[in-house]
Amino acid sequence: MGPHPAVAAIRLAVRRVLHDILNEASRTPAYSPHGGENRTADDSRPAGVVPAPGSPHERPPSPLVLVACSGGADSMALASALAFEAPKLGFRAGGVTVDHGLQPGSDLRAEEVALRLREMGLDPVDSVAVTVGREGGPEAAARDARYAALDAAAARHGATAILLGHTRDDQAETVLLGLARGSGIRSLSGMAAVSGADGRYRRPFLQLDRQTARKACMVQSLPVWDDPHNADPAYTRSRLRHEGLPALEKALGKGVVEALARTAQLSRDDADALDTWARQAAASVRDAAGLLECAKLYALPPAVRRRILRRAAIEAGAPAGSLFARHIEEVDRLITGWRGQGAINLPGKVVAQRQGGRLVIRQG
Amino acid sequence: MGPHPAVAAIRLAVRRVLHDILNEASRTPAYSPHGGENRTADDSRPAGVVPAPGSPHERPPSPLVLVACSGGADSMALASALAFEAPKLGFRAGGVTVDHGLQPGSDLRAEEVALRLREMGLDPVDSVAVTVGREGGPEAAARDARYAALDAAAARHGATAILLGHTRDDQAETVLLGLARGSGIRSLSGMAAVSGADGRYRRPFLQLDRQTARKACMVQSLPVWDDPHNADPAYTRSRLRHEGLPALEKALGKGVVEALARTAQLSRDDADALDTWARQAAASVRDAAGLLECAKLYALPPAVRRRILRRAAIEAGAPAGSLFARHIEEVDRLITGWRGQGAINLPGKVVAQRQGGRLVIRQG
Repeated sequence: MGPHPAVAAIRLAVRRVLHDILNEASRTPAYSPHGGENRTADDSRPAGVVPAPGSPHERPPSPLVLVACSGGADSMALASALAFEAPKLGFRAGGVTVDHGLQPGSDLRAEEVALRLREMGLDPVDSVAVTVGREGGPEAAARDARYAALDAAAARHGATAILLGHTRDDQAETVLLGLARGSGIRSLSGMAAVSGADGRYRRPFLQLDRQTARKACMVQSLPVWDDPHNADPAYTRSRLRHEGLPALEKALGKGVVEALARTAQLSRDDADALDTWARQAAASVRDAAGLLECAKLYALPPAVRRRILRRAAIEAGAPAGSLFARHIEEVDRLITGWRGQGAINLPGKVVAQRQGGRLVIRQG
Repeated sequence: MGPHPAVAAIRLAVRRVLHDILNEASRTPAYSPHGGENRTADDSRPAGVVPAPGSPHERPPSPLVLVACSGGADSMALASALAFEAPKLGFRAGGVTVDHGLQPGSDLRAEEVALRLREMGLDPVDSVAVTVGREGGPEAAARDARYAALDAAAARHGATAILLGHTRDDQAETVLLGLARGSGIRSLSGMAAVSGADGRYRRPFLQLDRQTARKACMVQSLPVWDDPHNADPAYTRSRLRHEGLPALEKALGKGVVEALARTAQLSRDDADALDTWARQAAASVRDAAGLLECAKLYALPPAVRRRILRRAAIEAGAPAGSLFARHIEEVDRLITGWRGQGAINLPGKVVAQRQGGRLVIRQG
């Protein structure tokens, strides 16, 4: 008898990602703080995998994959699947849990999660305490601190990849949060399956629903911890999860989460293609002095032209996060609705103005 | 003292669209069942506007703009604004109300709406009864019958344009309905400000909220009729309006409707640009016999390649409405994940298969 379908599903998701990592390693050197230059032709380990420091005659350890685990159902399920699949494909499995220090007793909680991970057979397992700043709001600050700690852990252990437990439901929420910004298809593209420097972050559960992860924990008798933040209506994501999305499902039908996740993937591909086009077109609309020529910009499709304008504003020093669609629209009217208007002020003291058929965007 | 701000807002929105129509008419002949060939150089009417049949020496009547009016607040506000603005810009204003025959007494209702429109000074005013079929579900069938009646009215009266009362709130609902399909950014682009053959349909209120239209009716003492369908939870759009969107606003904040409307505009521009790219690239990936070359398709960005595949499937006979993202993904794997798989069946008995480095898509 095989495993419970939920357990089979989480394992399959992890196995696919481990296969991807092996396939990529056989083409290009994987992320490593040491580089891949010590490899010899008769190495039996997967290509691109990092040899440990030490004698070149020692057999190098298997490549290490870490799981980032909060103790919640998603990442506990992910840890259990990694512990099961990693050895079969020649990987070592380790874990990191981050103590954000935002609630009393969070240090004990982190130690308990680390203990659970060790019981699953993960090694090494780190429990890392971080200090959460205030930049960009509480959710963004916690995220920044968490990823810095994960990056440091990967470097410390020479890990090939870090698995994150985000599910299709998290993806749907992220798309709706992006939709609320109204800033275009890039913000609809959610989280990537592969991200970070050298693609070190992987999200095996991005096509898997939260219910399956929860079920997999239950049938494996894994204790899970429900972060009270996830149910706190002070957080936008929590309100979305417990009120917004259920109401949307009631109105539109059960397929909404899946549709949002598919929208993320399609939007990401579309945004990538348009960014490529804009990058190529940007060179062709500049004069010999490197200034943007209005007539050539005018001839481009609006979607491409606005991307070029946005990029030029950012290159001139405008902070990307403060540059909204309405700013770019106003700059665009210097091209499409020219009636002698004056200079336009953008965030970061950047000024855009039209001068003799050229668009000049620079810090004022 | 000027008009109430809500009345000023609806009039400004209509004035802008009438100006657009004048500007376009001065460049290209507007839609007309008669064509523009009777024009003489000394015509004082706006260029491109249709002369009425009759003696070339008679002074032609002013161009006619129709408003499609259900009797609801949005289209009643639109009718009142058109009645006010049209004469000032040299237009005649007329109206059409469509009796869908779906409720008892709908014929009397339509006559009453027509009476109100005549009281506003609109002329001509038509009340048109239609028979709603069943194709595509009740909402789509009613819409098809309505637009056919509007097209016929425009032809009958030689109208230059037909104004529709869709507001920003309708647009937000349309975006969410598109999101629920999960079929990509084209379905997120909502309704166009200008659509139909020769751009005859205009939506002046697409940037205006429903509350403003309602307020404008109130302060002008215009009686409005609330279609019971709009509150009937049997309709997806009604559930979205009364439950889905309010819950989303509660979770994400009051700017959601505006963000959704902006997403529509940005998505439309992006989808247009990518369609242009795909159309151009489609020619360059075909061999001398007109077959799609897999190697050349492979080199394109996924967003462009999938659009070419979708278009090829439709050209081969697959009905666009039945062709989903998952179909195109499966065809795409013949290019990106080739491992000798067999022919793929698509809707409309269309078959896609890879043969000797070529992709063959045809009706089987």
